[in-house]
Amino acid sequence: MHRPMDDRVQIRHAEPADAAAVARLLHDFNTEFGDEPPGVAALSGYVGELLRAGEATALLAVAAGEPGAADVGVAVLRVRPGLWSGRPEAYLQELYVEPPRRGEGIGRALLAAAMDAARAAGAATIDLNTGETDTAARGLYESAGFTNREGGPDGPAMLYYEREL
Amino acid sequence: MHRPMDDRVQIRHAEPADAAAVARLLHDFNTEFGDEPPGVAALSGYVGELLRAGEATALLAVAAGEPGAADVGVAVLRVRPGLWSGRPEAYLQELYVEPPRRGEGIGRALLAAAMDAARAAGAATIDLNTGETDTAARGLYESAGFTNREGGPDGPAMLYYEREL
Repeated sequence: MHRPMDDRVQIRHAEPADAAAVARLLHDFNTEFGDEPPGVAALSGYVGELLRAGEATALLAVAAGEPGAADVGVAVLRVRPGLWSGRPEAYLQELYVEPPRRGEGIGRALLAAAMDAARAAGAATIDLNTGETDTAARGLYESAGFTNREGGPDGPAMLYYEREL
Repeated sequence: MHRPMDDRVQIRHAEPADAAAVARLLHDFNTEFGDEPPGVAALSGYVGELLRAGEATALLAVAAGEPGAADVGVAVLRVRPGLWSGRPEAYLQELYVEPPRRGEGIGRALLAAAMDAARAAGAATIDLNTGETDTAARGLYESAGFTNREGGPDGPAMLYYEREL
């Protein structure tokens, strides 16, 4: 069990029926970071399909006893067959905690639960992307054993690139 | 058709029977960058499984008319169902050209073929990781429309993190 410091928050695996809750958090995430979100309804459809197909694992941080929006954080994990070993590779695609609930250890608990889920799927490695200036996220990942350096702690940074098609 | 500047090199999609050729190039890649390679035989098994299962697309750059090792470069593409849209997401997992054949446009031709394969799979986006000091690779990706910056050309860098499990 990985519990945030505030033990009124619990982490649970999302079921397909939780797609709307996952989508709402991802929508808030996208909106906060200025991307153009597809809308909660569309996103809920995509999330539901992934969860039903076993193509993603979503973890929800749930605040016990809160009226209304009880889901305060989400992590989305993808696992694919490995190229470099006979074991799967895990990718932490998203990790988000609602702004009023930051600093309580909820992100750390979601990350730990995601690593547990990756291990349970047999994964040998886990990777993720984050922004250079997102020092809170970087601090969390580095304290959890992730590295951004190639070939050792003094190696060059590893960068993430993307484009639309 | 995307051709390197030297048109004696052609890009083709690897079949499962090409797993050993793909594995040999990946082994050279890993060895050049100082990682511990699993060995060509084991790697060939993993690659063959991915290709047979349709879990990866591999593209080979083949030098026409050369005796011996005719395969001079490789790209490995992964495509997964999308989280943020109803369309798949593509990930360029590896791109490698043998050292004696660099500077001939083979990497650019492999990258273009990988983007074509991603589009053919319906992907909306493609992403990849590379090292900060790998200026040749970064120049290639940037000239091909990839960005490492969040929210615009002056935004913060996007970083890649990983750990073993």
